[in-house]
Amino acid sequence: MNQILIKNARILTMATETPQILEGDICIEGSLIQAIRPSDSMVAENQALDCSDAVTVIDATGMIVMPGLINCHNHAAMALFRGYSDDLRLMEWLSEKIWPAEERLDGDAVYAGAMLAAAEMIKSGTTTFADMYFYMDDVARAVCDSGMRASLCQGLLFIDNQAERRMEATRRLFDNWHGQADGRITAMVGPHAPYTCPPDKLQAVMALAKELQAAVHIHLSETVEEVDQMFDRYGKSPVRYLADLGLFAEHHVLLAHAVNLSRDDIHLLKGLRGGISHNPVSNLKLGCGVAPVLELGDKGVTVALGTDGAGSATTLDLFETIKAAAWLQKNRTGDPTALTAYQVLRMATIEGARALGLDHQIGTIEPGKRADLILIDMNKPHLFPQNDLCALLAYGANGADVDTVLIDGKVVMGNRRLLTMDEKDVLDEAAAAARRVIPL
Amino acid sequence: MNQILIKNARILTMATETPQILEGDICIEGSLIQAIRPSDSMVAENQALDCSDAVTVIDATGMIVMPGLINCHNHAAMALFRGYSDDLRLMEWLSEKIWPAEERLDGDAVYAGAMLAAAEMIKSGTTTFADMYFYMDDVARAVCDSGMRASLCQGLLFIDNQAERRMEATRRLFDNWHGQADGRITAMVGPHAPYTCPPDKLQAVMALAKELQAAVHIHLSETVEEVDQMFDRYGKSPVRYLADLGLFAEHHVLLAHAVNLSRDDIHLLKGLRGGISHNPVSNLKLGCGVAPVLELGDKGVTVALGTDGAGSATTLDLFETIKAAAWLQKNRTGDPTALTAYQVLRMATIEGARALGLDHQIGTIEPGKRADLILIDMNKPHLFPQNDLCALLAYGANGADVDTVLIDGKVVMGNRRLLTMDEKDVLDEAAAAARRVIPL
Repeated sequence: MNQILIKNARILTMATETPQILEGDICIEGSLIQAIRPSDSMVAENQALDCSDAVTVIDATGMIVMPGLINCHNHAAMALFRGYSDDLRLMEWLSEKIWPAEERLDGDAVYAGAMLAAAEMIKSGTTTFADMYFYMDDVARAVCDSGMRASLCQGLLFIDNQAERRMEATRRLFDNWHGQADGRITAMVGPHAPYTCPPDKLQAVMALAKELQAAVHIHLSETVEEVDQMFDRYGKSPVRYLADLGLFAEHHVLLAHAVNLSRDDIHLLKGLRGGISHNPVSNLKLGCGVAPVLELGDKGVTVALGTDGAGSATTLDLFETIKAAAWLQKNRTGDPTALTAYQVLRMATIEGARALGLDHQIGTIEPGKRADLILIDMNKPHLFPQNDLCALLAYGANGADVDTVLIDGKVVMGNRRLLTMDEKDVLDEAAAAARRVIPL
Repeated sequence: MNQILIKNARILTMATETPQILEGDICIEGSLIQAIRPSDSMVAENQALDCSDAVTVIDATGMIVMPGLINCHNHAAMALFRGYSDDLRLMEWLSEKIWPAEERLDGDAVYAGAMLAAAEMIKSGTTTFADMYFYMDDVARAVCDSGMRASLCQGLLFIDNQAERRMEATRRLFDNWHGQADGRITAMVGPHAPYTCPPDKLQAVMALAKELQAAVHIHLSETVEEVDQMFDRYGKSPVRYLADLGLFAEHHVLLAHAVNLSRDDIHLLKGLRGGISHNPVSNLKLGCGVAPVLELGDKGVTVALGTDGAGSATTLDLFETIKAAAWLQKNRTGDPTALTAYQVLRMATIEGARALGLDHQIGTIEPGKRADLILIDMNKPHLFPQNDLCALLAYGANGADVDTVLIDGKVVMGNRRLLTMDEKDVLDEAAAAARRVIPL
């Protein structure tokens, strides 16, 4: 069995309410973290750990080991549209740029875009992502090939005559991919948003989710305009609309954005099974506002982090999202103590795992959990002196500081070199796909 | 004479109102950009350019060359306090953490901190910085040794019996350092802030600035509390206070922060000689608010970018500041077209040069200007595909994408290796200095 020994690590476990940094070694067997031990004892007990033979040793001197980051809201293939449509209003962005380009997408282009996104995510320390898009077979192929972990759903919109085809694609996603790639792929059901899913259709989607025993991933209250539209149409907020249809009562739900919430909405979300993906960079760039992360946290709602697609966010670097999330809550409240470094690191790890319903598998470094780990090289001017490691990771580090990435017990990047793909090929193929789908 | 040929570059000159990207070669003689030519002609005319003999050739294939970034507000030596005092309220941060540590600073510690900051700035593409601190001889030494360009001032506070000593330090800074390091050092006069400089003292500072023919660098309206304090004390806003004392009429002024401005304040700043250093990351982290960058721009005020010290901002990466500045104006106005990618790149380059009064020397890539250039490696997943280079630089790039840095015609970093200092020594000495000055 695959055995890896990570030696001389400073380990930020993310498993406790306050920061816990262990010094020692991590022993990995197969896909699992088997043990964390002080460095000396690990060496002495190699035999007992059955770690002596075919073991790969990684020297983590000078590095921090922490759980891989979890990106709870992405449209990975939109990496093809990076930089294509910035500095535009949302409707112009969609109708003049994104939709015409998406019309020209095919499975191969989506695969190329998803591989580009996977390369970027791994290189910036993300090990798991939640994705809503189409041609999900091809996204799943990219997950398999890249070695990432992902929760995938087909976006379900009821605005044209393709709705039935999309529902079928959801079933196919479950049949073909749920639990595949050594269990790294989870399928979800993905109604796009309250304003694109009328009540009867959403009930059909919920019935499907129940039948498949699946979690539900949906956009929610990203813009003021969509909230107004829901009031005009149904006399209620998007949150109330979903609550009244019973979505929160009966399903594990992943809500993306949740920016424009009323106090009533926040009360309705109390006790939510699942969580919210807070996507501050996309929200800022599109001028949508700042989500009430603190108020949601006060109600016990799990708030995790996501980037949204690179078409709006430009990068998929969760370290950037970590900074933005903390900055915005401090500034929104005028209180620099709001959302501390450790709290926002939790949002990027264990809270992300909770939001995806994967907290029994990932999100912390503990024996028995999957070995989704990132090693961060702290020997950098911007990470010196090391007065407070959590503050440096939250407010100082960026994706390029990630040196080594393990997913499910396999090293997918070492010394910044991707091991599951040829980076140059991935870039070239993404560029070619972008040329093909983006109208001149 | 030192000759450098940068070949096969895509050159973002920043010299025009709309983006101009030239493809070709840059010929550097001594400290100056001598010519920009199409690649072929440059090779043919090597003789004519007198570029044939002792020339260093840099192959910029796959890179963007742009002007070095300009950080208009820093306290470089505070890099020692990175991560030391996050998630605290401003007064607690100052009185319990920063001031006690600053009490223990000496010239060697300031040099170690400034070298750490210089290492970080060069590695993230900054070639010029404006600094206000103390032990400025030691900051100037670090500027000399690192090869950076800087506008330095001694912070002048009139709150204790050390004020006269600080005025003398300002004179000494001019005598010893103004125009030194091949002209890379400019000295400025640095009254700390309206609330620490009573009217008679500020008039004495202004007289000194006039005598020395120096620009003035001052903090302004960073927090609501200081604005209130000025109203309580003088019945007017900090901006009105400075205007009434004649500061704006007679001096080139660099104003740091300018977050909490009234409409009246903005009118008073119209026609400002000099500019404003907008420091969004520090402002966010301390919960100070968001500066009215667009409104200031509408009045023709030069708005540049700064980081503030790493004690508050954590990093000195101006690419992070570029992103934050654009995001915040888009979000503040709800308009994603506000502060475009190119506009914010101008703030980080030519507008920075204007704010420092150095736009005749730096800020654009044009023949006759100083060769302060950065080469950005675009062969990265997060910078692919290359639909729009300005959008990628503003919203995608981070400091770690900078491959090579030239300042004043000298290569100070090549292939991410610092050439003017031993990076490991700089980190170790900064860590030792931090241990010495930070109370346990």
